[in-house]
Amino acid sequence: MARKIILDCDPGHDDAVAILLAAGNPEIELLGITTIGGNQTLEKVTYNARQVCTIAGLNDVPIHAGTTRPLVRPVEVAEGIHGDTGMEIHDYQLPEPTVEVAEGHAVDFIIDTVMAHEPGTVTLVPTGPLTNIALAARKEPRIVERVAEVVLMGGGYHVGNWSAVAEFNIKIDPEAAHIVFNEPWPVTMVGLDLTHQALATDEIEAEIKALGTDLADFVVALFGAFRKNYQDAQGFDHPPVHDPCAVAYLIDPDVVSVRKVPVDIELTGTLTLGMTVADFRAPAPEDCHTQVAVDLDNRKFWDLVIDAIRVASK
Amino acid sequence: MARKIILDCDPGHDDAVAILLAAGNPEIELLGITTIGGNQTLEKVTYNARQVCTIAGLNDVPIHAGTTRPLVRPVEVAEGIHGDTGMEIHDYQLPEPTVEVAEGHAVDFIIDTVMAHEPGTVTLVPTGPLTNIALAARKEPRIVERVAEVVLMGGGYHVGNWSAVAEFNIKIDPEAAHIVFNEPWPVTMVGLDLTHQALATDEIEAEIKALGTDLADFVVALFGAFRKNYQDAQGFDHPPVHDPCAVAYLIDPDVVSVRKVPVDIELTGTLTLGMTVADFRAPAPEDCHTQVAVDLDNRKFWDLVIDAIRVASK
Amino acid sequence: MARKIILDCDPGHDDAVAILLAAGNPEIELLGITTIGGNQTLEKVTYNARQVCTIAGLNDVPIHAGTTRPLVRPVEVAEGIHGDTGMEIHDYQLPEPTVEVAEGHAVDFIIDTVMAHEPGTVTLVPTGPLTNIALAARKEPRIVERVAEVVLMGGGYHVGNWSAVAEFNIKIDPEAAHIVFNEPWPVTMVGLDLTHQALATDEIEAEIKALGTDLADFVVALFGAFRKNYQDAQGFDHPPVHDPCAVAYLIDPDVVSVRKVPVDIELTGTLTLGMTVADFRAPAPEDCHTQVAVDLDNRKFWDLVIDAIRVASK
Amino acid sequence: MARKIILDCDPGHDDAVAILLAAGNPEIELLGITTIGGNQTLEKVTYNARQVCTIAGLNDVPIHAGTTRPLVRPVEVAEGIHGDTGMEIHDYQLPEPTVEVAEGHAVDFIIDTVMAHEPGTVTLVPTGPLTNIALAARKEPRIVERVAEVVLMGGGYHVGNWSAVAEFNIKIDPEAAHIVFNEPWPVTMVGLDLTHQALATDEIEAEIKALGTDLADFVVALFGAFRKNYQDAQGFDHPPVHDPCAVAYLIDPDVVSVRKVPVDIELTGTLTLGMTVADFRAPAPEDCHTQVAVDLDNRKFWDLVIDAIRVASK
Repeated sequence: MARKIILDCDPGHDDAVAILLAAGNPEIELLGITTIGGNQTLEKVTYNARQVCTIAGLNDVPIHAGTTRPLVRPVEVAEGIHGDTGMEIHDYQLPEPTVEVAEGHAVDFIIDTVMAHEPGTVTLVPTGPLTNIALAARKEPRIVERVAEVVLMGGGYHVGNWSAVAEFNIKIDPEAAHIVFNEPWPVTMVGLDLTHQALATDEIEAEIKALGTDLADFVVALFGAFRKNYQDAQGFDHPPVHDPCAVAYLIDPDVVSVRKVPVDIELTGTLTLGMTVADFRAPAPEDCHTQVAVDLDNRKFWDLVIDAIRVASK
Repeated sequence: MARKIILDCDPGHDDAVAILLAAGNPEIELLGITTIGGNQTLEKVTYNARQVCTIAGLNDVPIHAGTTRPLVRPVEVAEGIHGDTGMEIHDYQLPEPTVEVAEGHAVDFIIDTVMAHEPGTVTLVPTGPLTNIALAARKEPRIVERVAEVVLMGGGYHVGNWSAVAEFNIKIDPEAAHIVFNEPWPVTMVGLDLTHQALATDEIEAEIKALGTDLADFVVALFGAFRKNYQDAQGFDHPPVHDPCAVAYLIDPDVVSVRKVPVDIELTGTLTLGMTVADFRAPAPEDCHTQVAVDLDNRKFWDLVIDAIRVASK
Repeated sequence: MARKIILDCDPGHDDAVAILLAAGNPEIELLGITTIGGNQTLEKVTYNARQVCTIAGLNDVPIHAGTTRPLVRPVEVAEGIHGDTGMEIHDYQLPEPTVEVAEGHAVDFIIDTVMAHEPGTVTLVPTGPLTNIALAARKEPRIVERVAEVVLMGGGYHVGNWSAVAEFNIKIDPEAAHIVFNEPWPVTMVGLDLTHQALATDEIEAEIKALGTDLADFVVALFGAFRKNYQDAQGFDHPPVHDPCAVAYLIDPDVVSVRKVPVDIELTGTLTLGMTVADFRAPAPEDCHTQVAVDLDNRKFWDLVIDAIRVASK
Repeated sequence: MARKIILDCDPGHDDAVAILLAAGNPEIELLGITTIGGNQTLEKVTYNARQVCTIAGLNDVPIHAGTTRPLVRPVEVAEGIHGDTGMEIHDYQLPEPTVEVAEGHAVDFIIDTVMAHEPGTVTLVPTGPLTNIALAARKEPRIVERVAEVVLMGGGYHVGNWSAVAEFNIKIDPEAAHIVFNEPWPVTMVGLDLTHQALATDEIEAEIKALGTDLADFVVALFGAFRKNYQDAQGFDHPPVHDPCAVAYLIDPDVVSVRKVPVDIELTGTLTLGMTVADFRAPAPEDCHTQVAVDLDNRKFWDLVIDAIRVASK
């Protein structure tokens, strides 16, 4: 049976690929997309979500706009990585979106959807800052035991990008991350340790290009712009395509190996604010509800992505 | 014209008096009561709110239950001050409440009420932790410019009670307080500097007793239990009746003198977590949106309270 | 019997007056002056100490140079208050100093002096950052029980100047202050609450001028420059002459009333770093080893200062 | 030419081996041993240093006692790892030490030794908390440019033992570590990432045992007790012999590979206090003065240790 998920995202080049993977893979039933200010402002990422749904023909997946800013900290966007639009792209003309934003706040959509489904059947997949998820857990605490699991892209146990030891999604709203990691639901952190193994190389790009569809051209254009930005901003040869890794783990756990380990969020560090602190000193206790993604089966991952683009191109 | 307010509270002995003052004074139009876990758990304080409304005959004021716990920190209650029930009382038998809790989350009631009224006409009066208000501001940012002002009981620029320099309401959810104090709406902090001037002395108690009504007996019983707890827990001779001071300021600004000063919330201090840091070093800038209560006209204050009890007794 | 003191200072306009008061009052036996980077760099304040001793004819008081910088934090000087030289002065020509710096580090002078005298006979009077005292306590822990007491100018329980709630001497080396306040020796904090009562008004200045000595002219010139800087930097009409207040307390405890209260130093606060957190919530415990200066007898204080200038002028 | 070093240590089982390696290898000239409260109290570790020097016949290496406690934090010892004596040992009778403690504080010995030698010729090798080194740098800042380098055992860029992400030596005096890592001298951090590769396996123990000397028996007894404690306290099969790794790096850089990377110390983190935060996001800048040990040539390392025990046994 397909996994029911809500994708909470801030598209974002890699968020766009996560949407396509979730939409194009039969193992996933995409109940809705919620948006969150992160890679760019809420307004921009919501527009981008609409564009991606439009180009992929996702007319039945509701898009609910969420929170504009982090709980406590000022708004910070990743313009150097995602550009002024949040999904900067060259040599490809995106259409005006025809998919509209649905009524109702993302937080309420999350709460209502989880409460309306059987316990243990809805999985939350946040790939941006965790503000929406945190607000939902505070507004309706009963969702915590009702959600199947939270599989998030963010953090890194040994790798940082927004500081030496912290990752963007967690660092810009560490209080929200603290809430999400400390609620007793199962949390899988697909962090930079894993996603830096998911590089969009020239070979991968060529494989996608070979699909010969308009959607494939869009993805190739996404990777092109993403690569350039990652080269300029962080010295990567090829861009890490973070967000679909979280979806891939849900489709096929063989793609992403995980390890149980207690994880908590640093809220007061001068150098370490927003670090996802994992304690590997001893075997995780029996009741440990957090785990981290460790190794990616790169070939299987890209096969999933390419298949999904093929499916969604139809 | 009467001031429209939403009273966001965690009854609580002094919250009960704040409800009576808001209900019994013609200058105040009490649009609703929202509850918040604080002095005791959400469940208990909501029950207490229903009891107070029942005994005061407030059948038309909706009570909406809110958030069960602070944004980031663990639940902490003031059992030493407010007892196991949150409104501990001796020698007086409170009735089973006949007033029910209204449908809808406190956060949504706050948002919907503010958005439904004319801009600048609804004042928020939080007398507990600021979690509900903070969540409302994050879920619907437009309320910030629409609210008339926020007049809150909490904090203290030179006085603490939950640590050397922090007050209970702020300290148990400092992140929520940080959100509320940093939004650009007008904030009046009625803190311990002011409320420690509002002591329920024997003389005041005698004046209330002399009203000779059942409601007066209830208030006298409230003060009796409150006094005992304050004597045991904090060495006070007479209990400071904090929360109605915020309502009194709205009824008659002559009762509570204020001073404009920038105020911010300390989030990382080891000794100072949750301190309301006021900067008195220079005259407040023109655009300063925060002010603190400084001096109480004690006689006028108690006259307001006693009048309200008299009115509400009818 | 005169009180034996080591004056640990960073002259500094008001430090200069503290030196004159310590030198010119018979109740004080000034064993030595140690210097510390603070108001200006170590080099400059040590030079200033030599100038003050020269103009006051203090040829027998050894001056030992100490630490150049705070324990952990970067060097920060109070140039806006004390000028480029650290003892900026106009309309008065200071002589080249004829008093030399003594051999040996200030920290070792403090240790050796305390260990060489009878227990309980040497008082430390720091009027700058507490780095020297902290290093001495760590290098030779036995001085802690051997020192009579520490009477320091710094901090403020309700007043700040280098932030909303922190004072310069404490804030620029809070770790050193933490060490000094947490060792079990008696500590008297003469903070801004007290020293802002010691303003050098026009009347006081006129009284000093009337002494008609060269030294008096120097002090008048000091106050003149100090006033101008305090007006420009902090909006004072008249400059608070902080440091001699600590010496005055030792000469005559009637000049400065004190109150026992636990005091600790905030090391991690975002808004409150370096705050001297005093806990007034309950009577100080029996074994409380810290006290704070509360009220100044302004007339008695200035009489002491003026007398000392008269004596030192001879 | 042999490297002149001062070994600043808190013996400590592995410190003992570091002393033997420094004493028994011809590439090292051991100018002196300074002691520091760490694994156990200053008194105990100084006694242990005397015992090790006695059993190894090191009569000419001065031992100077240093600081009893961390700069700011309370005393904390590693009794679970090093036992009540700090160098717990079974089945071996250590002699009463015949080597005495030298006059003069460790901090002054470090300063005087560095200032007395040619610039760039003395290397500091701290294998305990960095309090002595920090105090020396603050008391005499000129040592910083005069020291050849600081090669320290402590920290870990991806491994912790005293918290999830912090190592004992750094965590118990993080302020001292902050001082040492932020002075511009060359710092090589030989941290847990490296030293957890230096396990005293049964095979290694057998090789040492085969030396057939009394000193070898002592080392075997050390490892035996150390293994037991590490098994009980941290679940290791074999104990990591941390401290001699720092000495080994100085003897032969081929034994320990290093990588230049900026490293700083976290002072305010709730979960990360005392973490050695290394920033691997980009190639280290040209002027980066810190490097971390990465890979150990395990065979070469133990050959050095075993050779040194053989030499010191004569």
